[in-house]
Amino acid sequence: MPMNQLRRDPVSGRWTIITLDKPVISDLISPNHREEESVENCPFCEGNEHMTPPEIMALRNDGFGPNKSGWRIRVIPDKKPVLQIYGEVNNRGMGMYDVLDGIGAHEIVIETPKHNETFVDLSEDQIAEIYWTFKERILDLKEDARLRYILVHKNYGEAVGLTTNHSYSFIIGTPITPKRVKDKLVNARDYFQFKERCIFCDIINQELSDQERIILEDEKFIALAPFASRRPFEVWILPRKHEAFYELTSEYRALANLTKEVLIRVYKLLQEPDYIMALYSGPNIKAGRRRGYWQSLERDFHWHIELMPRLRTYSSFEISAGFPINSVPPEYAASLLRNIS
Amino acid sequence: MPMNQLRRDPVSGRWTIITLDKPVISDLISPNHREEESVENCPFCEGNEHMTPPEIMALRNDGFGPNKSGWRIRVIPDKKPVLQIYGEVNNRGMGMYDVLDGIGAHEIVIETPKHNETFVDLSEDQIAEIYWTFKERILDLKEDARLRYILVHKNYGEAVGLTTNHSYSFIIGTPITPKRVKDKLVNARDYFQFKERCIFCDIINQELSDQERIILEDEKFIALAPFASRRPFEVWILPRKHEAFYELTSEYRALANLTKEVLIRVYKLLQEPDYIMALYSGPNIKAGRRRGYWQSLERDFHWHIELMPRLRTYSSFEISAGFPINSVPPEYAASLLRNIS
Repeated sequence: MPMNQLRRDPVSGRWTIITLDKPVISDLISPNHREEESVENCPFCEGNEHMTPPEIMALRNDGFGPNKSGWRIRVIPDKKPVLQIYGEVNNRGMGMYDVLDGIGAHEIVIETPKHNETFVDLSEDQIAEIYWTFKERILDLKEDARLRYILVHKNYGEAVGLTTNHSYSFIIGTPITPKRVKDKLVNARDYFQFKERCIFCDIINQELSDQERIILEDEKFIALAPFASRRPFEVWILPRKHEAFYELTSEYRALANLTKEVLIRVYKLLQEPDYIMALYSGPNIKAGRRRGYWQSLERDFHWHIELMPRLRTYSSFEISAGFPINSVPPEYAASLLRNIS
Repeated sequence: MPMNQLRRDPVSGRWTIITLDKPVISDLISPNHREEESVENCPFCEGNEHMTPPEIMALRNDGFGPNKSGWRIRVIPDKKPVLQIYGEVNNRGMGMYDVLDGIGAHEIVIETPKHNETFVDLSEDQIAEIYWTFKERILDLKEDARLRYILVHKNYGEAVGLTTNHSYSFIIGTPITPKRVKDKLVNARDYFQFKERCIFCDIINQELSDQERIILEDEKFIALAPFASRRPFEVWILPRKHEAFYELTSEYRALANLTKEVLIRVYKLLQEPDYIMALYSGPNIKAGRRRGYWQSLERDFHWHIELMPRLRTYSSFEISAGFPINSVPPEYAASLLRNIS
């Protein structure tokens, strides 16, 4: 199989991962329906460890060895990674265009040994351990100076491409900073240069003072409907304390409590919608040619989680203009999520 | 009904249109299915002109008056516009946030008097008249100095939100330049400053020399699979001649011929997929505070059309990272579309 490529569109500046093996066109037109699932053929189930590549790490009970039963959380490389871990980035021109080899990390965090247990069903303790695992993997991948950014994200539901009823998240490390992340980093840096304050800290203060878009808060974290929510019931979860990097020390349990409570409310209100969730931490300062570029990063960025229920697909205007239309004002979304029992 | 708002997310820089009337949540969860359609209840059908707001313009056969039968193409305001034409933009702060009133143009081009005739079924003459109509509307809307950008786009298929079998396009004029358009304008300007050449002219030269991603070409236009295609079978159509603005004089018929031929091939290869299409012309230089901002525009921008078949929805990685994954190399897509008979 040829190595995938990262290609930059010179007009939009957007990078795309192009998989270079030629697909069967009929598979694109009518994607195969999900196969009947069972615990026997699910590679993520306990007892089926031999069906996956060797694990990268796992949280295990005492007395069991790697790639055997007895784990609570297990991290494995994706069997068909879109980005592969071995090789050089090989940054080069092709005529006027820019190309990199498809180098990167593509890992799966299996969040429970049990099939049919969705993320929201997991105990707060289990979710806290998942959050701890994300941190461990991010810290480990940051040792790799080829990787500029490590994004943790999960999806739930067939509409967002989920193909199994076994709960998991993805960790993807990329040799360029993804566009959406870069937009955040650049705006946060520009704001800091102008105001000498963190833009996220300012948002937290603004929201605590307005009280219109706050959904839930505790001592450590705040969940809010962002002022310019792109989609109905978009939620951000932010730590109150200014921290650029997702490197919590003892707050996993508080984060787990709040996340689970938010998800339960979203589930009740919207009848278990499909959703996506992403964790945005600061980029890998070890990586890249432009180490000086993010020099104020520790002061100007602030890690956070985005949660987006998926109630409909994007329209032609939203895609062609890059201009979302949201039919639920965030103040209304927050009041519904705040008041649901 | 309160006026909709345009709100800017300070972190991503992205504007969102927020519709401020509170929706019924159950409608969001299970959108109403399409009602049974008939020529009797379709407001876009000939004879039903009284079911739409008064027309803005129409191409008519001799002897018929406005808002009556006898038209070939008809342009009307959207009955429920997301942006409304009357009022002031009212640019203001809300605490740390930026808000505009939802001012703009939201028009519908009814492309045929006949129901169940899709865009690709229309004659080349009819498509040429549609292209001419787009130009007329863009030129007229550019007289409105509140509108920074006018985007013409169309969608086909239920997956992209189409609710009728009557062929139409949207024309949306916005008081800010949409993010995706701005990315193009900024990159084209930066490229021109660096190279003193139009980036699109350079792309055309590169592609004509490579011959790997060209799908079709004639004397006036080129259809190609872009080097960093975001989606399988993405197609760009560009005029060979450098022109920033979509203000053709006599080339509508050539553009219609090429568009129809490309669409027929996409239809054959992919079995009538849903698709979106958008026409990107230069922005409205009459508009806005920053007239000097686009001063090299006539040299650095180059109008073009994007066509994107929609074979699947976006994944959580693509949405949360802003980083598309395309499973069909554009060289392969172009060869399939080039060679289909």
